[in-house]
Amino acid sequence: MARARVHIRLKEGILDPQGKATLGALKSLGYEEVKDVRVGKYIEMELENGSKKQLESRVNEMCERLLANPIIEDYWLEVED
Amino acid sequence: MARARVHIRLKEGILDPQGKATLGALKSLGYEEVKDVRVGKYIEMELENGSKKQLESRVNEMCERLLANPIIEDYWLEVED
Repeated sequence: MARARVHIRLKEGILDPQGKATLGALKSLGYEEVKDVRVGKYIEMELENGSKKQLESRVNEMCERLLANPIIEDYWLEVED
Repeated sequence: MARARVHIRLKEGILDPQGKATLGALKSLGYEEVKDVRVGKYIEMELENGSKKQLESRVNEMCERLLANPIIEDYWLEVED
Protein backbone atom coordinates (compact mmCIF):
# COMPACT_ATOMS: atom_id res chain seq x y z
CA MET A 1 0.00 0.00 0.00
CA ALA A 2 1.14 3.52 -0.80
CA ARG A 3 0.31 6.35 1.54
CA ALA A 4 -0.41 10.01 0.84
CA ARG A 5 -0.50 12.89 3.29
CA VAL A 6 -2.31 16.05 2.30
CA HIS A 7 -2.28 19.37 4.14
CA ILE A 8 -4.92 21.97 3.35
CA ARG A 9 -4.87 25.46 4.77
CA LEU A 10 -6.71 28.69 4.06
CA LYS A 11 -4.62 31.09 2.00
CA GLU A 12 -2.92 34.01 3.70
CA GLY A 13 -5.36 36.89 3.97
CA ILE A 14 -8.47 34.72 4.01
CA LEU A 15 -10.34 35.11 7.29
CA ASP A 16 -10.20 31.93 9.39
CA PRO A 17 -13.11 32.03 11.88
CA GLN A 18 -12.24 28.62 13.36
CA GLY A 19 -8.69 29.81 13.99
CA LYS A 20 -9.93 33.04 15.56
CA ALA A 21 -12.31 31.12 17.83
CA THR A 22 -9.50 28.78 18.88
CA LEU A 23 -7.21 31.75 19.56
CA GLY A 24 -9.90 33.31 21.76
CA ALA A 25 -10.42 30.06 23.66
CA LEU A 26 -6.68 29.63 24.22
CA LYS A 27 -6.37 33.18 25.51
CA SER A 28 -9.28 32.71 27.87
CA LEU A 29 -7.47 29.66 29.27
CA GLY A 30 -4.44 31.84 29.98
CA TYR A 31 -2.24 31.06 26.96
CA GLU A 32 -1.40 34.70 26.35
CA GLU A 33 1.73 33.80 24.35
CA VAL A 34 -0.39 32.62 21.42
CA LYS A 35 -0.61 35.36 18.79
CA ASP A 36 -2.33 33.65 15.89
CA VAL A 37 -3.99 30.33 15.10
CA ARG A 38 -4.89 28.91 11.70
CA VAL A 39 -6.88 25.68 11.49
CA GLY A 40 -6.52 23.49 8.43
CA LYS A 41 -7.05 19.89 7.40
CA TYR A 42 -4.71 16.93 7.43
CA ILE A 43 -5.77 13.99 5.26
CA GLU A 44 -4.12 10.57 5.19
CA MET A 45 -4.91 8.19 2.35
CA GLU A 46 -4.07 4.60 1.60
CA LEU A 47 -3.69 3.89 -2.08
CA GLU A 48 -2.94 0.95 -4.30
CA ASN A 49 0.73 0.85 -5.21
CA GLY A 50 1.88 2.70 -8.30
CA SER A 51 4.75 4.90 -9.36
CA LYS A 52 5.37 7.79 -7.03
CA LYS A 53 5.06 10.28 -9.85
CA GLN A 54 1.72 8.89 -11.00
CA LEU A 55 0.35 8.74 -7.45
CA GLU A 56 1.38 12.34 -6.83
CA SER A 57 -0.34 13.44 -9.99
CA ARG A 58 -3.55 11.57 -9.08
CA VAL A 59 -3.65 12.89 -5.50
CA ASN A 60 -2.99 16.40 -6.80
CA GLU A 61 -6.01 16.00 -9.07
CA MET A 62 -8.13 14.79 -6.12
CA CYS A 63 -7.15 17.95 -4.25
CA GLU A 64 -8.09 20.19 -7.17
CA ARG A 65 -11.38 18.43 -7.80
CA LEU A 66 -12.64 17.52 -4.34
CA LEU A 67 -10.42 17.86 -1.29
CA ALA A 68 -9.41 21.50 -1.42
CA ASN A 69 -10.98 24.69 -2.68
CA PRO A 70 -8.10 26.14 -4.70
CA ILE A 71 -9.69 29.60 -4.73
CA ILE A 72 -9.34 30.09 -0.99
CA GLU A 73 -7.08 27.23 0.10
CA ASP A 74 -3.46 26.19 -0.36
CA TYR A 75 -2.55 22.54 -0.23
CA TRP A 76 0.55 20.41 -0.38
CA LEU A 77 1.03 16.67 -0.47
CA GLU A 78 3.56 13.90 0.07
CA VAL A 79 3.35 10.38 -1.30
CA GLU A 80 5.21 7.34 0.08
CA ASP A 81 5.15 4.30 -2.16
CA MET B 1 7.91 34.79 16.57
CA ALA B 2 7.99 31.06 17.24
CA ARG B 3 5.77 28.77 15.26
CA ALA B 4 4.05 25.51 16.24
CA ARG B 5 2.47 22.93 13.97
CA VAL B 6 0.00 20.49 15.48
CA HIS B 7 -1.49 17.42 13.81
CA ILE B 8 -4.59 15.81 15.27
CA ARG B 9 -6.01 12.54 14.01
CA LEU B 10 -8.59 10.08 15.24
CA LYS B 11 -6.99 7.04 16.86
CA GLU B 12 -6.78 3.80 14.93
CA GLY B 13 -10.01 1.88 15.35
CA ILE B 14 -12.18 4.97 15.91
CA LEU B 15 -14.76 5.35 13.15
CA ASP B 16 -14.06 8.37 10.95
CA PRO B 17 -17.31 9.33 9.20
CA GLN B 18 -15.74 12.32 7.43
CA GLY B 19 -13.01 10.06 6.06
CA LYS B 20 -15.56 7.48 4.95
CA ALA B 21 -17.63 10.15 3.18
CA THR B 22 -14.51 11.47 1.45
CA LEU B 23 -13.55 7.95 0.39
CA GLY B 24 -17.01 7.44 -1.10
CA ALA B 25 -16.86 10.74 -2.97
CA LEU B 26 -13.40 9.95 -4.37
CA LYS B 27 -14.59 6.53 -5.55
CA SER B 28 -17.63 8.03 -7.21
CA LEU B 29 -15.28 10.39 -9.09
CA GLY B 30 -13.38 7.34 -10.38
CA TYR B 31 -10.43 7.24 -7.96
CA GLU B 32 -10.71 3.51 -7.41
CA GLU B 33 -7.10 3.25 -6.22
CA VAL B 34 -7.99 4.96 -2.92
CA LYS B 35 -8.50 2.35 -0.21
CA ASP B 36 -8.86 4.41 2.94
CA VAL B 37 -9.12 8.06 3.95
CA ARG B 38 -8.72 9.58 7.40
CA VAL B 39 -9.42 13.26 7.92
CA GLY B 40 -7.67 15.09 10.73
CA LYS B 41 -6.76 18.62 11.71
CA TYR B 42 -3.65 20.66 11.06
CA ILE B 43 -3.16 23.69 13.29
CA GLU B 44 -0.51 26.36 12.85
CA MET B 45 0.19 28.75 15.69
CA GLU B 46 2.30 31.83 16.12
CA LEU B 47 3.71 32.23 19.59
CA GLU B 48 5.87 34.68 21.48
CA ASN B 49 9.46 33.53 21.53
CA GLY B 50 10.62 31.30 24.35
CA SER B 51 12.77 28.25 24.83
CA LYS B 52 11.85 25.39 22.51
CA LYS B 53 11.39 23.04 25.44
CA GLN B 54 9.04 25.39 27.24
CA LEU B 55 7.04 26.14 24.09
CA GLU B 56 6.64 22.41 23.40
CA SER B 57 5.43 21.82 26.89
CA ARG B 58 2.89 24.68 26.66
CA VAL B 59 1.57 23.61 23.25
CA ASN B 60 1.30 20.04 24.50
CA GLU B 61 -0.82 21.31 27.38
CA MET B 62 -3.03 23.27 24.93
CA CYS B 63 -3.59 20.03 23.01
CA GLU B 64 -4.54 18.11 26.15
CA ARG B 65 -6.84 20.83 27.45
CA LEU B 66 -8.47 22.23 24.32
CA LEU B 67 -7.24 21.32 20.86
CA ALA B 68 -7.47 17.53 20.90
CA ASN B 69 -9.67 14.99 22.60
CA PRO B 70 -7.05 12.60 23.98
CA ILE B 71 -9.63 9.84 24.49
CA ILE B 72 -10.30 9.42 20.79
CA GLU B 73 -7.54 11.43 19.10
CA ASP B 74 -3.78 11.19 18.69
CA TYR B 75 -1.80 14.35 18.23
CA TRP B 76 1.79 15.35 17.60
CA LEU B 77 3.48 18.71 17.43
CA GLU B 78 6.59 20.50 16.24
CA VAL B 79 7.88 23.84 17.48
CA GLU B 80 10.27 26.15 15.62
CA ASP B 81 11.73 28.96 17.70
